[in-house]
Amino acid sequence: MKELAYYDGQYGDPSEVFIPFNDRSHFFGDGVYDATIAGNHVVYLLEEHLDRFYSSANELKINIPMPKDQLADLIRTLTAKVEGKTHFVYWQVTRGVASRNHAFDPAMPGKLWIYVRPQSDIEHSLPEPVSAITKPDTRFEHCNIKTINLLPSVMAYQDAKEAGVFETILHRGDIVTECAHSNVSILKDGVFYSHPNDQFILRGIGKTHLIQACYRCGVPVIERPFTLEELFNADEIIITASSTFCQSVSLIDGVTVGGKDPKTLNVIGSEALQEYLKTIGDV
Amino acid sequence: MKELAYYDGQYGDPSEVFIPFNDRSHFFGDGVYDATIAGNHVVYLLEEHLDRFYSSANELKINIPMPKDQLADLIRTLTAKVEGKTHFVYWQVTRGVASRNHAFDPAMPGKLWIYVRPQSDIEHSLPEPVSAITKPDTRFEHCNIKTINLLPSVMAYQDAKEAGVFETILHRGDIVTECAHSNVSILKDGVFYSHPNDQFILRGIGKTHLIQACYRCGVPVIERPFTLEELFNADEIIITASSTFCQSVSLIDGVTVGGKDPKTLNVIGSEALQEYLKTIGDV
Repeated sequence: MKELAYYDGQYGDPSEVFIPFNDRSHFFGDGVYDATIAGNHVVYLLEEHLDRFYSSANELKINIPMPKDQLADLIRTLTAKVEGKTHFVYWQVTRGVASRNHAFDPAMPGKLWIYVRPQSDIEHSLPEPVSAITKPDTRFEHCNIKTINLLPSVMAYQDAKEAGVFETILHRGDIVTECAHSNVSILKDGVFYSHPNDQFILRGIGKTHLIQACYRCGVPVIERPFTLEELFNADEIIITASSTFCQSVSLIDGVTVGGKDPKTLNVIGSEALQEYLKTIGDV
Repeated sequence: MKELAYYDGQYGDPSEVFIPFNDRSHFFGDGVYDATIAGNHVVYLLEEHLDRFYSSANELKINIPMPKDQLADLIRTLTAKVEGKTHFVYWQVTRGVASRNHAFDPAMPGKLWIYVRPQSDIEHSLPEPVSAITKPDTRFEHCNIKTINLLPSVMAYQDAKEAGVFETILHRGDIVTECAHSNVSILKDGVFYSHPNDQFILRGIGKTHLIQACYRCGVPVIERPFTLEELFNADEIIITASSTFCQSVSLIDGVTVGGKDPKTLNVIGSEALQEYLKTIGDV
């Protein structure tokens, strides 16, 4: 198959899969999701993403209708059906199907969704630096939960697209939080700084693995909030996501930034990239 | 028909209507809605609700696929098909159908949804006081836009349901904003106080009409933020929504409140109720 969409036991091409009118995603965005990359049909860090997924659902009392190992098998089985070398692998659970009412039956069975499509291969070297813009972070105070209430992120990323840049970096007052759909960290004087995993950011699994790479490479890590001023004065600015292992930024709001510690950037970025390539058997 | 669901030109019983997998509501809650009540198949304040609906869509650059008067006709036509005297009339627009990506084509045509179902009749006298609880308001800073990113409201209303009360009153720090799915205002020393219509609350049409009733009845209105302390010390606490014209509250978090100005409460509440009953031809 070229792409695969799954909903509640049925699957096919996305054009063939339809959702009941009363699924609660329609009226409340009442669901949580997770996503990663697959290379050579190996789903990268699936267990970690599933741990986060079940944790998100638990925070909102959404019932995932199968145990973790069974869902892992299902995701792997469906990914294997899609042509290509590299894939975007996405799944979500919505609270269920019921006539519209804010309140819900806590026992209602959730509905599982899975979506697999090809994406461009990961290069064997670190990518060139990119540009970004900044924007106030107006999101809710549950950014630690990976929900499908994503409108502020949609609008922030649309701003990036219309500005012709890679991402939008968000800030609450002076504090940098994360990006529209990725995390942002900085290097300064050889230390890796990143926002702590509180309610204002998502605990990025790409970021977690870059931090582990820092530890392995002897780069100190401090997870504390940093300011816009620290962002602009950083030695390197690094964006991470589940398929963006270590993306440096060289221009923010039209101002040249970073580029002052390429050695550390390259050491930790290569370490994170190698972890992926080893997992999918490409090295 | 007993209930009616409409999506993008097709309608039927909700169990017969299905939504394409790639509708952007599924992955981003990428849509806005509005809703009101109908009595004797007269849709109450439809034009005002449509003005707010088109304004919500415009804020998010979502394209509603038909002009306002045509949508008004469609909503009225579909409402007329559903049995019963009193109805909940709901409609929304989602940004459209496209493969999952935060960014969107600004020209993509939106998808219209309409849902009509019976609801209990409005009594000809004001309802008895109800109970409520309070909870911190952790929502985003776009509460003036009526989006389907409603997870914090879902969880707040679920708390009310599990506590056996009518609503959850939200507060940002000490400031009372609104409820899980309605507005809250107070009477104190003969003055009607309510949170101004900024980014922290929805401009309730029920509230707007109760305020107009205040003006007609000579009750001064001050739209300014008020505190939790003022809420607990108010003469009357009033919840409003499009089918809740003037609902007083007598117990908050288990503490007896309000009940000190039943005369003003009754004057403005009766005025608002009469406006509805006149519109639907029941007086």
